[in-house]
Amino acid sequence: MNSIPSKYVYVFGASRTEGAADMKNLLGGKGANLAEMCRLGITVPAGFTISTEACTAYTELGREAVQERLQTEVRAGIAFIEQEMDKRFGDAADPMLLSVRSGARASMPGMMDTILNLGLNDEAVLGLARQANNERFAWDSYRRFVQGYGDVVMGLKPVSKEEHDPFEVIIDVLKEQRGVQLDTELDSDDLKELVQRFKALIRARLGCDFPTDPWEQLWGAVWAVFDSWNGDRARAYRELNDIPQSWGTAVNVQAMVFGNLGETSATGVAFSRDAGTGEDLFNGEFLVNAQGEDVVAGIRTPQQISLVGSRRWAELALVSEEERLGKYPSLEELMPEIYAQLLHAETTLEKHFKDMQDIEFTIQAGKLWMLQTRTGKRTGAAMVRIAMEMLQQGMIDEKIALLRVSPDRLNELLHPVFDPKALTAAEPIARGLPASPGAATGQIVFFADEAEAWSRQGKAVILVRQETSPEDLRGMSAARGILTARGGMTSHAAVVARGMGKCCVSGAGAVHVDLKARTMTVMDAAYHEGDWISLDGSTGEVFAGQIPTVDAQLSGDFGALMALADRYKRLEVRANADTPQEAGIARALGATGIGLCRTEHMFFEGERIVAVREMILADDEAGRRRALAKLLPMQRGDFEGLFREMDGLPVTIRLLDPPLHEFVPHDEASQRVMAQDMRVPLSKIRMRVEELHEFNPMMGHRGCRLGISYPEITEMQVRAVFEAGLNIQAQGVVVKAEIMVPLVGTVREFDAQAEVIRRVAAMVFAERGETLPYLLGTMIETPRATLIAEHLAKQADFFSFGTNDLTQMTLGFSRDDAGKFFPDYRKQGIYERDPFRTIDQEGVGMLVQMAVENGRAARPDLEIGVCGEHGGDPVSVAFFHRAGLDYVSCSPYRVPIARLAAAQAAVQG
Amino acid sequence: MNSIPSKYVYVFGASRTEGAADMKNLLGGKGANLAEMCRLGITVPAGFTISTEACTAYTELGREAVQERLQTEVRAGIAFIEQEMDKRFGDAADPMLLSVRSGARASMPGMMDTILNLGLNDEAVLGLARQANNERFAWDSYRRFVQGYGDVVMGLKPVSKEEHDPFEVIIDVLKEQRGVQLDTELDSDDLKELVQRFKALIRARLGCDFPTDPWEQLWGAVWAVFDSWNGDRARAYRELNDIPQSWGTAVNVQAMVFGNLGETSATGVAFSRDAGTGEDLFNGEFLVNAQGEDVVAGIRTPQQISLVGSRRWAELALVSEEERLGKYPSLEELMPEIYAQLLHAETTLEKHFKDMQDIEFTIQAGKLWMLQTRTGKRTGAAMVRIAMEMLQQGMIDEKIALLRVSPDRLNELLHPVFDPKALTAAEPIARGLPASPGAATGQIVFFADEAEAWSRQGKAVILVRQETSPEDLRGMSAARGILTARGGMTSHAAVVARGMGKCCVSGAGAVHVDLKARTMTVMDAAYHEGDWISLDGSTGEVFAGQIPTVDAQLSGDFGALMALADRYKRLEVRANADTPQEAGIARALGATGIGLCRTEHMFFEGERIVAVREMILADDEAGRRRALAKLLPMQRGDFEGLFREMDGLPVTIRLLDPPLHEFVPHDEASQRVMAQDMRVPLSKIRMRVEELHEFNPMMGHRGCRLGISYPEITEMQVRAVFEAGLNIQAQGVVVKAEIMVPLVGTVREFDAQAEVIRRVAAMVFAERGETLPYLLGTMIETPRATLIAEHLAKQADFFSFGTNDLTQMTLGFSRDDAGKFFPDYRKQGIYERDPFRTIDQEGVGMLVQMAVENGRAARPDLEIGVCGEHGGDPVSVAFFHRAGLDYVSCSPYRVPIARLAAAQAAVQG
Repeated sequence: MNSIPSKYVYVFGASRTEGAADMKNLLGGKGANLAEMCRLGITVPAGFTISTEACTAYTELGREAVQERLQTEVRAGIAFIEQEMDKRFGDAADPMLLSVRSGARASMPGMMDTILNLGLNDEAVLGLARQANNERFAWDSYRRFVQGYGDVVMGLKPVSKEEHDPFEVIIDVLKEQRGVQLDTELDSDDLKELVQRFKALIRARLGCDFPTDPWEQLWGAVWAVFDSWNGDRARAYRELNDIPQSWGTAVNVQAMVFGNLGETSATGVAFSRDAGTGEDLFNGEFLVNAQGEDVVAGIRTPQQISLVGSRRWAELALVSEEERLGKYPSLEELMPEIYAQLLHAETTLEKHFKDMQDIEFTIQAGKLWMLQTRTGKRTGAAMVRIAMEMLQQGMIDEKIALLRVSPDRLNELLHPVFDPKALTAAEPIARGLPASPGAATGQIVFFADEAEAWSRQGKAVILVRQETSPEDLRGMSAARGILTARGGMTSHAAVVARGMGKCCVSGAGAVHVDLKARTMTVMDAAYHEGDWISLDGSTGEVFAGQIPTVDAQLSGDFGALMALADRYKRLEVRANADTPQEAGIARALGATGIGLCRTEHMFFEGERIVAVREMILADDEAGRRRALAKLLPMQRGDFEGLFREMDGLPVTIRLLDPPLHEFVPHDEASQRVMAQDMRVPLSKIRMRVEELHEFNPMMGHRGCRLGISYPEITEMQVRAVFEAGLNIQAQGVVVKAEIMVPLVGTVREFDAQAEVIRRVAAMVFAERGETLPYLLGTMIETPRATLIAEHLAKQADFFSFGTNDLTQMTLGFSRDDAGKFFPDYRKQGIYERDPFRTIDQEGVGMLVQMAVENGRAARPDLEIGVCGEHGGDPVSVAFFHRAGLDYVSCSPYRVPIARLAAAQAAVQG
Repeated sequence: MNSIPSKYVYVFGASRTEGAADMKNLLGGKGANLAEMCRLGITVPAGFTISTEACTAYTELGREAVQERLQTEVRAGIAFIEQEMDKRFGDAADPMLLSVRSGARASMPGMMDTILNLGLNDEAVLGLARQANNERFAWDSYRRFVQGYGDVVMGLKPVSKEEHDPFEVIIDVLKEQRGVQLDTELDSDDLKELVQRFKALIRARLGCDFPTDPWEQLWGAVWAVFDSWNGDRARAYRELNDIPQSWGTAVNVQAMVFGNLGETSATGVAFSRDAGTGEDLFNGEFLVNAQGEDVVAGIRTPQQISLVGSRRWAELALVSEEERLGKYPSLEELMPEIYAQLLHAETTLEKHFKDMQDIEFTIQAGKLWMLQTRTGKRTGAAMVRIAMEMLQQGMIDEKIALLRVSPDRLNELLHPVFDPKALTAAEPIARGLPASPGAATGQIVFFADEAEAWSRQGKAVILVRQETSPEDLRGMSAARGILTARGGMTSHAAVVARGMGKCCVSGAGAVHVDLKARTMTVMDAAYHEGDWISLDGSTGEVFAGQIPTVDAQLSGDFGALMALADRYKRLEVRANADTPQEAGIARALGATGIGLCRTEHMFFEGERIVAVREMILADDEAGRRRALAKLLPMQRGDFEGLFREMDGLPVTIRLLDPPLHEFVPHDEASQRVMAQDMRVPLSKIRMRVEELHEFNPMMGHRGCRLGISYPEITEMQVRAVFEAGLNIQAQGVVVKAEIMVPLVGTVREFDAQAEVIRRVAAMVFAERGETLPYLLGTMIETPRATLIAEHLAKQADFFSFGTNDLTQMTLGFSRDDAGKFFPDYRKQGIYERDPFRTIDQEGVGMLVQMAVENGRAARPDLEIGVCGEHGGDPVSVAFFHRAGLDYVSCSPYRVPIARLAAAQAAVQG
């Protein structure tokens, strides 16, 4: 809010319209589209929109600051509606009634519900009855208005969780007294009685009368919309959906039309294409003689709009054609003329907006009024199909087709989801972070080895842990899904699960795991080993019991979309993959290289961990070398597999990164086992584990610091790389190795490791009499590395931003600990996005940009990529595109998402 | 080394001199000063210096790269010496002998020892005997040469630690055979025999002959000097003393003169002022008929140079005036003419160099030759006195006087030190970090409460811990010194000890603490509770047994120096102080404010910790508020004390910073006690402690993140500040409160806390009807804060850089864990300085500068300070001066150091 805007109120109607579709920021989505429909000549009840700027001024400066200007403009707006509709607001004899609706830029549940029939009072209801020649209709409208306004505007809510909606209680009591079952069985006197009782309730509970002045009613509704923008539910929704608190909402005030004036009236919703599958089929639902809310309420079975849709519905609902035609005819059959108008409007709108439309309409006494049009929500699969079909139909061009698909929604195509029918009934028992997408259902196990064992017996299991560690890898692999009580979006469980494409919910704080008792407790409910639970890794929800899942299927449209994306994107997309299996998935999903192979993940399998621990326990370099010699052939084998799988594509290998204490057990029982296995005294293991203890392991003895202390580790690892490369190259495979030094902070650190790597390379090449081209680069993950990028670029062939660690260090946030305070931060709007999911452009992004600029200044052909979790986040991918990176690397299942995001970034320039 | 220098060899002598004193970087200190003496007309044996550039080229490019050029120039240099001294190198009849010495920019032990008498062989020794008319002298010279050259150049060292020096073994055997005690009792035949046996040993051990060719001898010596620059000891010394590996050493080749040609010959060292006290007294020591090494060897008692010095010596040594005159006459008495020449040379040199000189000379057959002059090493006290007296004497101006004192050496004046006499005999049993200066001796205790108890019984105790925690505060305060096995220079023990001005050695890795057995083990030796040990917190040394200490005394010169410093410095110096007591010390040491009051240090005393724990255990905000209400009066009392003590000066108060788990016990025993004390079940405490666990506490739920989650903590703390301020202001004291929000990373974090602080301020002022001026600022300690400095400066009155955390996060180093790899890093030259002691200018410094520039751009009058440990480090203080900060803040005992460093920075511009 830099200056006072010139106006707050924008009218729309048949004769004059001030708004338009491109004014969404100012008028909200609903308001802008109502105006656009008027411009297209579609019949819409006249109205006006109070702009979002008024809401922002109201929030920031208070009601007084906007009231005066707004009153003048609103009065003019009402006068406009009166003229258009040829009725008078507050005219008791023939009242013009209004609807008041909120309408933000983005569709947003949690905002104020619609207020209908505003303008009614004890006198006007009589006028309405006379005009409509329908007393029951008038009193029902009044009843609905008092109930809605009392709840939404006046705030008469249940006083406790136990209490039912008090208005509904009053209705139930009256129905009991009248001996009827349905609201529709109440007659106009009953409705009149209800209005009286509602008003009495309001007076008793709120200590004030229900407002009878239509203007007072209107202002109450307007302020309530503004207040609802700042309500808890709306705030919570915005946090979840990354909507800035500063946008504000618009208010739409519009003349009422009625779908409940008799058998020639109706109300309904329609979609220009199928929201579930994307099929190009116009259909929807309607109810004769009903108001909009009745369609949603689900008391009467709605009818289908198109004949094709109606027949399909009957087939699914096991309704005979006879019964269908008799009881549930389509609008196409029932009111063919109206249907034709609707179809025309739909076609006009879809062509105009060039996207699938979700339309609300009312038929009042045989006249069609359009109440709303908006871009239709759809499933990920529908999103892809609609985009590709509209492209084929010539409705949109390639760029728009690309922009039409939300990259994140591709997840739905890549992972299993819960069967939607089964899900509606389920209530989550807990909520964690949506750490790795997909749905899974299985029996609880608490130990990784049992996950393996049960899985071998053919059972579906969910591994439930306080947190996971690398030792749990095989158990995680065997489980259908993983649930942890601790840890964030980039905790071990989350990162590994995403790599495996396996569903994971992490950091579910309400879950208490008791390993001894083999139970998990949520609130007061205990779940035992073997109990069924279900996880939704895309939402973070945890459900009790078994919920069936539906497998992913990649459609032909998906492939076409990906091919299109690849033609537009400038960024390459590599994958983070540690095994040939993961590499294979990544390649199948379109990765053009491995951007991060975490060599330590190879250290845990079977006998390897024994050799690793031998190395850690060794008293001197000679002892370490003996242990490393055992690891060499295994690691070489791993790299051979990767190189073979990635034939012709680059494979970026990061040297050992985690602190050594991650490889030793910390509990006494496991230490005893280790002591026995390795035939060393327990005390020695204890002492070494104690020595390895770190206060802040994230900033401890890890990354290249290990290689500096123990160059023999680096020697073994790069020897494995070069020997594997030569072996595979000899088989005719094109090997492109890129070796990456982690956690570099100074040029000398890089130089020291580079010297070792080049020396080993020269040795191996001399031994074999052959060479292997390779790149030697550095991770950029400490803030200091970004500051000395110019000097590093002179030494390193490439940069790879490790944005996870860079974010942690720049923000001073431990991602594993942030769960304790970050919810407070989101609630208070301190961070609008999770900086571990979407890169913090203002802080971390500034360092990235500095490093890119200074690095390229020193070496124009420097290859620059990113291998943090952000590489798979669409908003971050767009940033990396703008920052001029060469590639992003992400977990295999996010590769398609990154490809599409990269294409969108290129299209958006 | 960007280009090949024009020459490598610089001659000096009576007739021509190419070097000068200002060429130290090129010629080393020794070479530059030899040249300067020649320029001053002082008689020096002719010679030449091979420049440090030759050494650097040798190290970087190898011997071949320099050999050819060097050979030509060295031959010319030898020709020059021959001409000056009128002798021929390699002339068997009358050989010119040479000395070869290393000479780096900075004086540096660990480099190659001096080679004397180079040029002798079996023929030349006969010529020398003839010329000197002294066969024994000639053979003794030859013997010394072979022994020295064999050891230093040829590398004939003992093969094991157990073996004695093999040359000395041969001498001992011969003395045994001859039945004599002293070397001097061996005659020329014996010495001849020794030469033969030495040569035989060399042949046997090294498989090669001792070189007879003088040129071969010379080149061997030159390469040995260059090699010694890269030797382990020299590297280790450079690491310890922050000398870059790239400097290189020069080589000085000079004609030999002999102090052992009879009774008119002598050799000695002299100081232009007293090195211990700084008194303006010319004195030193000499030996008649001796070579330089004999003075150092300590076999004969040396005589004093000046009469005054000689008389003082006799008094201390209990030598009668008669005996003194007979056996130990001063040079002034013995050779008055030579003494006069020496005094003249000394006066000339001191006046010329304007600093105390340390001179080496030789008298050869009645002729005085000066061999070296250099700035004399001195104690901290002497440093101060000499600077201030030279200023009074008009020899130097104020700026030079300020620059003459190394700020760090002021420590010696501020803290007790070991009695130098007692110390010489002691050998350290272990070495840790010099965490807090001063010396302490006491009995070992392992528990803080026992430190208190023993101390109450009047015992001197040293608290020995694996590491300390805030719960140990009172025990630390009661102890004379603190020794920890873990932790760095900024560990809890180190920071707290420095604040207390108490001696501390931290991170002594060789010390194993066994709390159960109440022993500490170093190697195989065990030290039990009650055993005496002594700590030198200025060197990090740990000694067994009791070593008496000498108390600190601040001399008048110290005060004068400080007053001078204050006139020149631009930076203000504040202190980090948490108690009125510390504040008092800080003020007495010249602090002009408190730059950091860590409020959490107030949370541990007595019943406070109970209230703090109550707060932590509280289930809701109401419970927390109840506990905080108990803390309020205590915290208010603390602030009252601070404000009273700092009357008129600013007091910067940081809101609660550490994670809450620092306030709860982590071992079961203490948890049991806490459970009993607080009457809650142990399980509740366990669960809460577990909930508070953090993977990386440094980056966890701390700093303003606590205040965001629990605004009631901030409310209590600032209420205590404002109430205390108003109470004390009412007493006529001038209160200047500055409230500081820690760990800020976003503007919204600061705003959220600022809102709470301003709200509470308004409330308190309204309650009291009075106001208190205050500043509201932010710490800059996350890298992100430096990046958004411009935005923060619009909201905050001041910035205070928390460079400890900023360094940790920028470098990705945990200071508590760095001990594991940092020694490797120093050894490999990856960091030339400890970034936690001296600010990393390239990385962290860049962020500081950015933040200062951007902060001031947004708010030109922004107050900017630093309150990290770096605020007391002279090199860092100079950086902060240049960066344009307003003040530094450091622990009270470093305030004088910072004041001087600030003045030096201002003088150096």
